[in-house]
Amino acid sequence: YLCYMKNIKLTLEYDGTKFKGWQVQAKGERTVQGELIAALQKICGEKVSLIGSGRTDSGVHAAGQVANFKTKSDKSCAELHKALNANIGKDVTVLKVEEVKADFHAQYSAKQKTYRYTILNRPHRSSIDNRYTLHFSHKLNLSAMRAAVKYFVGKKDFKSFQGTDPSRKNQDTVRIVKSLNIRKKGDLIEIEITANGFLYKMVRNIVGTLLEVGTGRLDRDAIPGILKSKNRTQAPATAKAHGLMLVEVKY
Amino acid sequence: YLCYMKNIKLTLEYDGTKFKGWQVQAKGERTVQGELIAALQKICGEKVSLIGSGRTDSGVHAAGQVANFKTKSDKSCAELHKALNANIGKDVTVLKVEEVKADFHAQYSAKQKTYRYTILNRPHRSSIDNRYTLHFSHKLNLSAMRAAVKYFVGKKDFKSFQGTDPSRKNQDTVRIVKSLNIRKKGDLIEIEITANGFLYKMVRNIVGTLLEVGTGRLDRDAIPGILKSKNRTQAPATAKAHGLMLVEVKY
Repeated sequence: YLCYMKNIKLTLEYDGTKFKGWQVQAKGERTVQGELIAALQKICGEKVSLIGSGRTDSGVHAAGQVANFKTKSDKSCAELHKALNANIGKDVTVLKVEEVKADFHAQYSAKQKTYRYTILNRPHRSSIDNRYTLHFSHKLNLSAMRAAVKYFVGKKDFKSFQGTDPSRKNQDTVRIVKSLNIRKKGDLIEIEITANGFLYKMVRNIVGTLLEVGTGRLDRDAIPGILKSKNRTQAPATAKAHGLMLVEVKY
Repeated sequence: YLCYMKNIKLTLEYDGTKFKGWQVQAKGERTVQGELIAALQKICGEKVSLIGSGRTDSGVHAAGQVANFKTKSDKSCAELHKALNANIGKDVTVLKVEEVKADFHAQYSAKQKTYRYTILNRPHRSSIDNRYTLHFSHKLNLSAMRAAVKYFVGKKDFKSFQGTDPSRKNQDTVRIVKSLNIRKKGDLIEIEITANGFLYKMVRNIVGTLLEVGTGRLDRDAIPGILKSKNRTQAPATAKAHGLMLVEVKY
């Protein structure tokens, strides 16, 4: 028999603090994808395959993650929206529910993504918003960090900035970074990066390197050599997850 | 024998979510004052009397609460600062430690205070920053709210906006509201009030009334009559605690 399948696009906001990242884990730990799939099973009466624009790591937040799933459910988008928010933890919010064309794929259709990393640069930690900001007490040299930006913008092989993940070996490591802006708002420093796509932990690895430039421990002119080496061990350490937010995915 | 006493001023930031307010409770519940007194006892070896600029209610946050205490401790301000932040929960941060004149009193010396109340005005809740914002889904009429501001600014008897608290009966209920600003930042509405002092729950009661004006359930021109009645039951309900932040105390 014929049945009508809908392709549903979700736009999501979440606080990653209490999630083991986006992707369902074998060990049954709490993940955003898992939370949504469980809610959708309750609402639609079927186990859907939920595709995210990409996996966010444990502790990473999102203001505009996108996902899609196909369903036979005859519920309207408004009904799904209301039911979803009522059946998931308050640390995830469905912002939008839209019916999209059959060929829309949250991961493969994505044209560009924007991430923002927030650093609190002052001697003492903060008790407000500390779930979303990395506290960094060493004074950062903003002009040195801004002068380093040019090495990351453009079409580059970011292999040296790719996190180690056995499941993602041998993938193409060239990405186009469209913009990288460093903004200062009082004691806060926001690093916003837009690219056609990101390698595993790429933003946090770039931020880790910018922090080393900011403290003066790394000369910014060492960056081209690090990129050229295509060797993760040549680049500084990964910045912590909780300062990172997936801001937007464009299609 | 003679001994040198220092009067120490603390500037504090805290996330009120997991505190039963500022003031030490008889039942031994967790409070900001209690947390600091316990840490100071450990650090200074004596039980100090810690005076706050005012009590913040359970769930209310602070970006600039001020307190003071007197101590015989010979520790420097920098030493106290470091030791304090190391001995209190991460949801309180000591921002500044200063030695002040003997007659400085965090409550009585205060000249003015500023509170900010933040409302997220959109259909769906948020999962980011929801510890600090009141989610209000009904569309608010900002121009009506702004037109109501004039009724609250100036020297007024705010008895109708004073929360019931048996321990504070018969106090003078006249206060001077120096400014009341309503700002819109995307989906957020910030209500910032500066006064020479505030009655118990006064900000939350004013915000509760402004919300009723914003929804259209209350005509703003009813406010002078509410003030005149000097009767709490004439004014709308108190807005929830978690949207409120004590921003600054001036001396």
